[in-house]
Amino acid sequence: MSRGRLILMPNTLDFGVDDSLDLREVLPRRVIEQAARLGHWAAENAKTTRALLKRVDAVTPLAQPLQAVQIAELPRPAKGGKPAGDDGAAWRALLEPALAGHDLGLISEAGLPAVADPGARLVALAHEAGIEVVPLSGPSSLLLALAASGLNGQSFAFVGYLPVDASGRTARIRELEALSARAGQTQLLIETPYRNEALRQALLAALKPTTRLSISVGLTLPGGWTRTATVADWKRGGSAALPDRIPAVFALLA
Amino acid sequence: MSRGRLILMPNTLDFGVDDSLDLREVLPRRVIEQAARLGHWAAENAKTTRALLKRVDAVTPLAQPLQAVQIAELPRPAKGGKPAGDDGAAWRALLEPALAGHDLGLISEAGLPAVADPGARLVALAHEAGIEVVPLSGPSSLLLALAASGLNGQSFAFVGYLPVDASGRTARIRELEALSARAGQTQLLIETPYRNEALRQALLAALKPTTRLSISVGLTLPGGWTRTATVADWKRGGSAALPDRIPAVFALLA
Repeated sequence: MSRGRLILMPNTLDFGVDDSLDLREVLPRRVIEQAARLGHWAAENAKTTRALLKRVDAVTPLAQPLQAVQIAELPRPAKGGKPAGDDGAAWRALLEPALAGHDLGLISEAGLPAVADPGARLVALAHEAGIEVVPLSGPSSLLLALAASGLNGQSFAFVGYLPVDASGRTARIRELEALSARAGQTQLLIETPYRNEALRQALLAALKPTTRLSISVGLTLPGGWTRTATVADWKRGGSAALPDRIPAVFALLA
Repeated sequence: MSRGRLILMPNTLDFGVDDSLDLREVLPRRVIEQAARLGHWAAENAKTTRALLKRVDAVTPLAQPLQAVQIAELPRPAKGGKPAGDDGAAWRALLEPALAGHDLGLISEAGLPAVADPGARLVALAHEAGIEVVPLSGPSSLLLALAASGLNGQSFAFVGYLPVDASGRTARIRELEALSARAGQTQLLIETPYRNEALRQALLAALKPTTRLSISVGLTLPGGWTRTATVADWKRGGSAALPDRIPAVFALLA
């Protein structure tokens, strides 16, 4: 029996909450049509996947009723320092539709799957199983923020989240600043939205005045913006607090 | 007078050569309509910009004839070790349409502008001049290759091109492998297409057998593919030489 493919499906960057959004405005037609055809999904979040499929159905009718579309969620990591246990079987089970000959979609809560989310493990298993992996073009808040920053786009790194405790966070910020200065490399980071403003304050407190800091908020959404300035200029600006429910991307270049 | 914005316009990944391509298949409607409205461009390459605008015109008529659209190329870097000279004035001149109130498009030969190309300098100047920067969603070969690799998407770096001379290249490959092992960070690199196969051979010769290497060729194009395997498996595979005219992205995780 021939195998299905693993289709990496981009999601919008609004977490499904902008009721006025016409999907054709933000995703290419080929991507929307592919989403309408898929009957099997591996999803970071089933709810936001159904929200996307409703939007897809509004412009390209789904090949089957939404209720008949199979959406399996990725295994969640163990919390609170407990040993993770062997969840390899649960991950491999996600690939069963593809092994049985069906194309399988992988989708994240927002943006490109397997970037800044746990989905890469499924992609790795697909390669091991000889399943073809097909990435589809869509918005990536990280790359849009990098492009809009005006910071070095020929050498950059995404380093994820910073430590939550204050001293660990300050140490990590200074480490990233030193690395950026040494390699001329833009460093990109993200934070849970309710900590956006706390991260901004921590960056302004720990970075050198000449280091350039770029903050992008709500890119591709109405009212989204990017500002890039030196740390000294950010401090002078007396700008308003960052929103606490909209995703932001932070970039620095020392 | 109110200022125009700097619009970061994504390009396709085929360098304008796929005659059968319907732009609606690969770019969102909002992006195509924005391209049709712009009368002023700053471009890495005027020829590929005109190729894109012809494709745009085929689905959304341009607001003005193509001949009337102003396309200025980015200043080229000085070659052969000559001192670069002060080309700041040439860069700033590119922003004049925006300072005069017109929206200005920034566009690369392929993919997102200001990522893996010289355009970031114009974005930085726009921020300094108080010009709003608006990034539009489109394909990025780097991020598509990362997603399709199955390598770590929660920590990754793009490091551009390697040295051309063999000993410098080997040393740099080993440095990147050590960095990847230390930080658990996927390292992404690119090469001029005619050196794709030479880079693959250099990677296979220099990397450890257990390091995972992912190669993506021609993503979003017909026949595009991604393969991820350990260096040992790549060597066993006896795979065909990489194509010498199609862009490839290389990713490694030690």
